[in-house]
Order: sequence, then C-alpha cells, then structure tokens
Amino acid sequence: TGSKLPHTGTTIFTVMSALANDLGAINLSQGFPDYDCDPQLVSLVNDAMKNGYNQYAPMAGWLPLREEIARKTEKLYGAVYHPDTEITITSGGTQAIFTAICAAIHPNDEVIVFEPAYDSYAPAIKLMGGTVKSLELEPPDYRIAWDMVKRLISNRTRMIILNSPHNPTATILSESDIEELAAIVKNRDILILSDEVYEHLVFDGQTHHSMARYPELRERSFIVGSFGKMFHTTGWKLGYCLAPAALTAEFRKLHQYTVFSVNTPMQVGVAEYLKNENVYNELAGFFQQKRDYFRDGLSQTRFRLLPCSGSYFQSVSYEHISDVKDTDYAIQITHEYGVASIPVSAFYSKGTDHKVLRFCFAKKQETLERAIERLIKL
Amino acid sequence: TGSKLPHTGTTIFTVMSALANDLGAINLSQGFPDYDCDPQLVSLVNDAMKNGYNQYAPMAGWLPLREEIARKTEKLYGAVYHPDTEITITSGGTQAIFTAICAAIHPNDEVIVFEPAYDSYAPAIKLMGGTVKSLELEPPDYRIAWDMVKRLISNRTRMIILNSPHNPTATILSESDIEELAAIVKNRDILILSDEVYEHLVFDGQTHHSMARYPELRERSFIVGSFGKMFHTTGWKLGYCLAPAALTAEFRKLHQYTVFSVNTPMQVGVAEYLKNENVYNELAGFFQQKRDYFRDGLSQTRFRLLPCSGSYFQSVSYEHISDVKDTDYAIQITHEYGVASIPVSAFYSKGTDHKVLRFCFAKKQETLERAIERLIKL
Ligand SMILES: CSCCC(=O)C(=O)O
Ligand SMILES: CSCCC(=O)C(=O)O
Repeated sequence: TGSKLPHTGTTIFTVMSALANDLGAINLSQGFPDYDCDPQLVSLVNDAMKNGYNQYAPMAGWLPLREEIARKTEKLYGAVYHPDTEITITSGGTQAIFTAICAAIHPNDEVIVFEPAYDSYAPAIKLMGGTVKSLELEPPDYRIAWDMVKRLISNRTRMIILNSPHNPTATILSESDIEELAAIVKNRDILILSDEVYEHLVFDGQTHHSMARYPELRERSFIVGSFGKMFHTTGWKLGYCLAPAALTAEFRKLHQYTVFSVNTPMQVGVAEYLKNENVYNELAGFFQQKRDYFRDGLSQTRFRLLPCSGSYFQSVSYEHISDVKDTDYAIQITHEYGVASIPVSAFYSKGTDHKVLRFCFAKKQETLERAIERLIKL
Repeated sequence: TGSKLPHTGTTIFTVMSALANDLGAINLSQGFPDYDCDPQLVSLVNDAMKNGYNQYAPMAGWLPLREEIARKTEKLYGAVYHPDTEITITSGGTQAIFTAICAAIHPNDEVIVFEPAYDSYAPAIKLMGGTVKSLELEPPDYRIAWDMVKRLISNRTRMIILNSPHNPTATILSESDIEELAAIVKNRDILILSDEVYEHLVFDGQTHHSMARYPELRERSFIVGSFGKMFHTTGWKLGYCLAPAALTAEFRKLHQYTVFSVNTPMQVGVAEYLKNENVYNELAGFFQQKRDYFRDGLSQTRFRLLPCSGSYFQSVSYEHISDVKDTDYAIQITHEYGVASIPVSAFYSKGTDHKVLRFCFAKKQETLERAIERLIKL
C-alpha cells in the first residue's frame, strides 16, 4: 500500500493553466493554441460522425490514417513504415510515450533522460521499476555532452529518450548529435524513444533529424508524433507511434489494454485532411512568423532571449533581473503582470533553477501583442 | 529484455471483428452497436468544435461533464461524488480500469478476479507485478461462491474486481452478493474495482447494485462508467472513474501520465446531452426490446439460451450440438453461417471451455433478424 508515485504532484501545466484561468491572465504556460483549427478539419470530423464512424476503431488505428502517416513519413524522411505492423494510433503523444516505456522497460533497466525533460518520462520509467539516469543540460545552448552520455551507459541501459524539437528548450538535434548517438548505441541493446511531436515546427530552414531518417537508429526507435500539435487541436488527443514490427508488436500488447483504441471520428477526419500535404508543409512558416513576432516583442523587455530553433516555445533568462526562484517568479508575473509562463526548473528532476521561464507562442498575434505590452512593464 | 506481456496475443475482439470483416459476416462478436447514435449528440459535439473547444481539457476532465456525472450518480444511487476531487474523465472504460490498477497495485499484491472476465484486468495486474487470484464461475448461472472467495483472501489481497452487469455472462450482482462482499472486505485493507460500464442496461425491472449505493463499499471503490456503452458511441472513447478523494488523487497521478487528458469536444457535447435525463433513463427499455427479440429468435435455433439480466450480450450453450472447442466453433460458424460471436473460453485465463458462445445484441433489428435466419440453419 502507499502511493505508486509518492513524489508526484499535479503537473506544472495544470497548476499554471489553472492559475491563469483563476486570475484571468494571458496563458502562455501550457503548450496549446488559443486560435481555431482549420474549419475544414472540423467539418471532416463532423462528416465522419454523421456518416456513422462512431464505433471502435481497429486497435492499431483507422487504416487510412495509418496509410497517410506512412505516406508522409516516406515523403519527409525517406523511411518506409508499414501501416499493418509498424504504425499505431494513440490517444495523443503522452499515451504513446507512456505505452512505449511500459512496453520496453523492465525492473532495474536504466533509461537515459536529458534534462530539462517533459515531465511524463520519469514517472512512467519508475512505475515500471526502471531507473532514470539523467544528464542535465544547461542554458543557453542546452547542448548534449556526448562524452558524459557515454559515461552513463552501463549494461543495464535499456533506452535513451530524445526529444527534438525540444520542449522546453526549443533546441533541435544536429547532424553531429545523430552521429554521436549512432556511435553510442551501435552494437548495444539500447532502444531509443524519440519524442518528435514538434517535427514540423523547425525554423530558419533547418532540418528535422527524425530518427526515421537513419536506418541504424530507426531499427531501435519508437518515434512519437502528435496531430494535436500539428493541427492546432491539442484537445483531440490524437497521436501515433512508429516503430519496427517487433517493437510495435510489444507496443500494441500494452496499447490494447491501456486504451484499446482511439477516437474514431477524429481519426477518420484527420486521415482525410492529411491527403493535402500543404496542411503540414505550411506549418514551419506559420509558426516561424509567430516566433519572430514574439521574439521581436520580447527583445523590448528586460528578459534575455534564449535561442529558438523549433517547437511552440520561447525561453527567457531573468537572472540579471531577479534572484527569485523561477517557480515563484512565474507565479508572481502571473499575479502582477497577468502573463502565465512555465518555470523551467519543473523540467529538472532535482528542480535545478537556471532562472529561465518558458513562454508558448502558439497564440494569436493579438494575444502575443497584449502579453508583450504587459511584459514590457516588468 | 524480452516481452513485458509474454503470454499476450491480440485480443479476441480484434481477432473476431477482423474475421467478420474479411468474410463479410454479420459481426455479433465485439460489443458495439451497428446503428447510429442520436444525431443531436453529434450536433452537440460539432457545436463544441465550432465554438473552439479543441484544446486540452483539464486533466481531471471538463468540469461541466464531471458535474453532470455527479448529478446523475446522486439521482440514481443516492451517492454524492464531488466533481473536483472524486470524478475523473477517462479515455473510455478500458483506460479507467488500467489506470485504477496501475494506481493501486504494488508488486506482490493479490487481486481477486472472477472468471470469465474482461481480458484487460489480468495483463494490467501482471504489469504492476501483482498476482491474479482467479475464481472460475460456471454456466448457466455463474453465481459467485462467496465461501470460495473467503478462502482466496490473504493478507496480500489488495483488490477485488467486480463487473455488474457482467460481460460476457449478462448476470448482475444481487443484494445478497453485496452483503457477502461487504462482510468480506469489512475491517480489511481491500479495494474494489467495480466495472459498471453497463450500469443502465439492466432488464426486467431489476436493480443495478452500484457500489455507489453502499457507503461501506463505496469508500474503497473505483467505479468505472462508459459513455461509449451508454450513448452508442464506443468509438468516442469517453468514460469515467468515481472514487473517494484519496483514491482519486492516486488515480489522477497515473492518469496525468497515461493520457494527460481526454478528447475535449466529446466531453463538451456529452456534458450538454446529459442534461436531459431521458437519454439514460430510456436505455434499459431500448436494450430490453433488443434482448427479447434476439432471445425469441435464438429460441428457434438449436442453441440453448443462458439467462440474460443485463449488458449487451446473450450467451448460448452448444454442448448438446457439438464438442468442437468454442474458439474453433465460433470461427467455424463465422465461416459457414456468416455470423461472428465470441468464444467465452477467451475470458478464462486457463481457457476453460464450457461450450458457450457470446453474441452482442446491440444491433439493428434487421441485423438481429438476418443473424437468426442464418443461425436457424445450424
Ligand atoms: C499535456 S499538457 C502539456 C502540454 C505541453 O506539451 C507543454 O506545455 O509542455
Ligand atoms: C474494447 S473492445 C471489447 C468491447 C467489449 O466490451 C466486448 O466486446 O466485450
């Protein structure tokens, strides 16, 4: 008896979004858009419901959706994934991550996690009896010191978790990161969990180095994607997991008992929507504009901007302004200036506080404008 | 390394539905309706999407939906559950079951499961390092021998899983079952997981003995409900878990990392729809008509009907017709007569074969009629 996750509270996203709501503050904390998705997508889902697609989808997902994902993955990354055996539709990226960890991690396995890290990795690993081996990365660049990674490897290392574009730091993996990673896992029984939910949100003409591109990495990778992040519908809870057939077989064993299957009308609607490649090809430009606008605005505040190569997020450093703990500072700014952010210490298991706040810029231009107006006063 | 669920294949529901599809057979196997849900419900969900409810719902669920569930539970069972701390919206009944087991079961805990049992309980228990203590029930009545239950109790017993109305046997718990159960758990640290997804599908004026009715049971129960089963939308993956605040707190710790949150537009639409009590009060009558029609038809076949007090399902015995294994017989009937069913041995961990097949009657009258026409030839 006792708690299965004794050191777990409510996620910081829930805490900050609730505070923003209570105070009527502008909510740049939790990562979700405040503008509408494409009305055409809504109408495709409505058609699906009206046409009677309201019962269980197949456990692995609606086949036409898996086929569209295969097409997109081949086109973008030159990788052929078979819809029947290598693609599974999930209830969002979070469920894909949870299920991959449940499927792969045995008691006493070690998992290498780079921090700051999305907060769901560690609890899932611990629930499975695994051990988190974390490597802390530091602002402003948050570069991975691969020498340090090598030192963390043991014969118990079962998985390395990667996330590019990265939440919260907005960094992306480079070609040389990929080489270092490939050298480390070569001839070792190490899996990769690659959280690529922001795959389309890479800026300045840079390349997203999906694990799917590299056969020697791909053969050992669970790759996680998210239509919520892609199509401005985080509340639809639709994501997917790509993995070689043997890993997918294990993933599905867990998936079928975790949720069994995923919302059918959303799957049917998104499958239809994906037939038009523009819907994802235009995303980088769409978000780059928001990033540029927001960075411009933030450069007029007292914050120091950190780099931003991808994702929904812009981080800022405030150590030259205040030495208040980042959690307290985020709360204080929400109260006093009406703008909610996420303290990046929440992404470090030890709560390491580099005095960095994360803002979500997946917002209407006018929201970003109003937020800037308030933050300038700070 | 190796599989986390080594003895797990694809669920029988997936296998039989796929076979039915491949052969163009009438699919009375997996439990889902073949008729449309209420168009008003579809239109409420469409309104929600059009009104911009497309981003993350709160982790615990859309508050108005939790409030409607509280209202319904109080009205039907006289039990007050607080939306803030005792009700959580899940991605279907299956996720609620999985999450409750993850939240409660520690390594070496024992869980009492009555068989035949829904196939997701045991894998979740094993994944958590727990042990399944199963008690086999037998046709035609599948009564629980409470003396045997007492003998299974040890100081490691952490949970008893109940399911009423029962899938696949269509039995319901009686008042005396409740008394026996209460006597057994009294003064013991034993939780109850009560799978009540068919709560509204109780026939012949009988009463659904929800755990919510009995304070001494309720205080230790996770109660699982399903809007998919309620509103003929199994593909919407919307369910819930009721539990006292301390249990809900543990449940949510897991829930937030399993799926984080649940489809928003469906939650908003169903919350609105629930304001009209008729939508659930009329269900028993609606399904009783289907049951009566289907039983009438089946009584003209060579099968022997088993009792049916609730749920979507009618079971039949065929031991006087054939001694083929039930799995083979279900497949054979699908091939030769074009009607798919579920072999009940799939619900026994040891594969115990009482020569019983389960048919789902949540189907259009004409589907049931065509199925009977085919089964009469048998
Ligand atoms: C699942 S809630 C968190 C959303 C998100 O990705 C973030 O804000 O980091
Ligand atoms: C989640 S698929 C199984 C549906 C069902 O409840 C059943 O057929 O028993």
